[in-house]
Order: sequence, then C-alpha cells, then structure tokens
Amino acid sequence: MSRVTAQLSVSLDGYLAGPNQSLENPIGVGGLGLHTWAFPAQGAQHEVDAAVAAEVMSGLGAFVMGRNMFDSGRGPWDLSWRGWWGDDPPYHAPVFVLTHRPREPLVMKGGTTFHFVTNGVESAVQQAREAAGDLDVGIAGGASVVRQALRAGLLEELHLHVVPVLLGAGERLLDDVGEPALEQVEVRSSPVAIHVRYRVVRA
Amino acid sequence: MSRVTAQLSVSLDGYLAGPNQSLENPIGVGGLGLHTWAFPAQGAQHEVDAAVAAEVMSGLGAFVMGRNMFDSGRGPWDLSWRGWWGDDPPYHAPVFVLTHRPREPLVMKGGTTFHFVTNGVESAVQQAREAAGDLDVGIAGGASVVRQALRAGLLEELHLHVVPVLLGAGERLLDDVGEPALEQVEVRSSPVAIHVRYRVVRA
Repeated sequence: MSRVTAQLSVSLDGYLAGPNQSLENPIGVGGLGLHTWAFPAQGAQHEVDAAVAAEVMSGLGAFVMGRNMFDSGRGPWDLSWRGWWGDDPPYHAPVFVLTHRPREPLVMKGGTTFHFVTNGVESAVQQAREAAGDLDVGIAGGASVVRQALRAGLLEELHLHVVPVLLGAGERLLDDVGEPALEQVEVRSSPVAIHVRYRVVRA
Repeated sequence: MSRVTAQLSVSLDGYLAGPNQSLENPIGVGGLGLHTWAFPAQGAQHEVDAAVAAEVMSGLGAFVMGRNMFDSGRGPWDLSWRGWWGDDPPYHAPVFVLTHRPREPLVMKGGTTFHFVTNGVESAVQQAREAAGDLDVGIAGGASVVRQALRAGLLEELHLHVVPVLLGAGERLLDDVGEPALEQVEVRSSPVAIHVRYRVVRA
C-alpha cells in the first residue's frame, strides 16, 4: 500500500535549518550539524545511522518538492535553472515541484524528471501517488511543503531524525500544522541521533 | 558525583504545557496528554515507562523550583499558601523556591522543607548542591527555571520524555536558552514516549 511520507533531520529545539539562510549557506548557521548522522564529517558512522541513511531513499516512487527547495533564492523564475543536484539528481523518480509558474517537464539523467505543478499541494500529491504506483511518495521538502501536507491531512508518515543540537532560531518544522494526531511506530537511536517514525492518524 | 538535572515531559513540538493555562487547568489545553506515559488514564503501563517513572525521583537530594510552580496564579504573596502538594509533598527533601519575597522556611511532612531564595538561580542551585551532598539536585520546574539554569550553565543533565503529541501553542522549553552543547547519553522508548537523557557539555 502506497504511503505519503516525509523524513527530515531536525534539531532538538525543532528547527530544520538555522538562522541566516543564504545561497552560500542554504541550511543556515549551524544547520550542517543536523546532517552529520547521515554524512559524518570524520570518523566512522554508527551502524544504526548507516542503516537509516540507506533506507530513507528506498521504496519511494515519486516525490513532491517545494519551489523554494528547487530554486531557493534565485528570484524570478529562471528557465535555465535545472535544480541544485547536477545532471543526475538523487531522486531517480518523478519529482513534482510546486510552483505558480507553468513550465515544461525537465528530464534529467538517472530517471529523475521534474514536473511543475501549478494547482496546489493536493494536486501535486495526487499526481505523485499516481506516478509512484505501489511505491511510496516522499515529500522531499522544504519545511513549508511538509507543513502544508500535514495541515491538509495528506501526510501519512513523518520520519524524524532528532539530533542533539540547539539552533535557537531558523525554520521550524512543526509550527502551524493544525492538530494531527500522531502515533509513534518505531524508534531507533545511535549516539548522535534518534530516528523516530510517526504515523499520522486520520481523524 | 552530584549533578544538577531536570526531567520534563515535552510535546513533539517542544511544549511543556498547552495554551490557556489557568488555575483549573495548570498545564493548559492538551497538557495532560504529556503525562499519560507516567500516569496512564487506562490500561497497563508499558514496562519502560514504569521503569522510567520509578527512577525520575530517585537519587535526588534537593530541588530548585520556580515561584510560579510553587504558587502559580495566586497573585500577591500569600503566607497561608503551602504549595499544591498537601501536607506531605512528593519531594521528601529540601526544595529551594526562587522568589523575590523573603519568607521563613516551610517545614512539611515527609522530609520536604520549602526554602525561599531571593538572590537568584545561581544561589538557589548552590544551596541545593550543599543540601544534596552526594545526591543529585533536581530542577523541579517550571520551564522558566529550567531555561534560566540552562542559560546560566548550571544544568548538567536534561532528561526529556518526548511524547507524540502536538500542542501547537503554550510554554516552550528550549527557547532562549543560549547555545549549550548537548551530548545524547541514553535513549529508551515505549510505544507512547521517547525517554532521552542529554548531558550538557560545558564550553
């Protein structure tokens, strides 16, 4: 059964990115610290973190992405822009990008195609569901799209990687998401992260 | 070696209490849901939750408490007020209550004595350390005192019980606490809570 999921690294104080995000520092001051469990700067990776990192992109047949994640900070819509990920993005599946400006689909190497969706998050999720078939749909981010999906009752599973970092400011994940009921379905941990999956319970 | 610790139940979105706190509902709308792991409304308690609940008050030789937790919402200092906990409060140890008004110590049954400290959180923690001897000092709450202790570098261990509840508003624990570095030292979980201990690393 296909599910709509999102997996995000989050600071203990609830931020997905630190303050002062910029083109040079897209995840803000301190934001890199959220991802060391997946991309250790030095030393060996804990086996739990390695296992989780290997899983997070598996089983996903399509993605939904916010426009800001696709072209963050580039200002007016730039048709020469082909995303941050080079010729062969890591998605290897259709990616439905929410935007207000229509654009022809962008076919990349390795199976990634960016489709541009102008009629809202529900439509983007529906198109991604159809494209994914029996596989899951991943809300790739950013925070705003995950919040929209939660608020609209579209997200079915939230997989958080909670790291022992306090950012103090930045972009918060769980603000203004309505009142979804969550059920904790799995907890794993390494010395540097808690990996917890929540099921969003439909009212 | 004596440590200064705090243990708190917190919603996944970071709140210690819900919105609209009042005398009738001191932990706000939805706040009771933070404590069902410790006090299950019905059904059996998970063995992990039972073990954690049994531990959280052990090994503590003295406490520090905010004035608001002692007399929440009572307005002007009321010398007839003897706390929320009846004649035999659950502390069974000296409790140093931060306040701006001097008051004689209040000796309760069962070993609890409320001492009123008018010269700030550092002094309260120091007095509690001396009273605790080789045992630990517990910051009993509320949120404001825990934040003060974190900011002042006085807290050595933070033990959180993270429950799969979103409160959406209320009193947040980890706002404006400076930038303490945390080290995750233990994670346990039941189906309804993640119990995680962090050591506060001194800079």
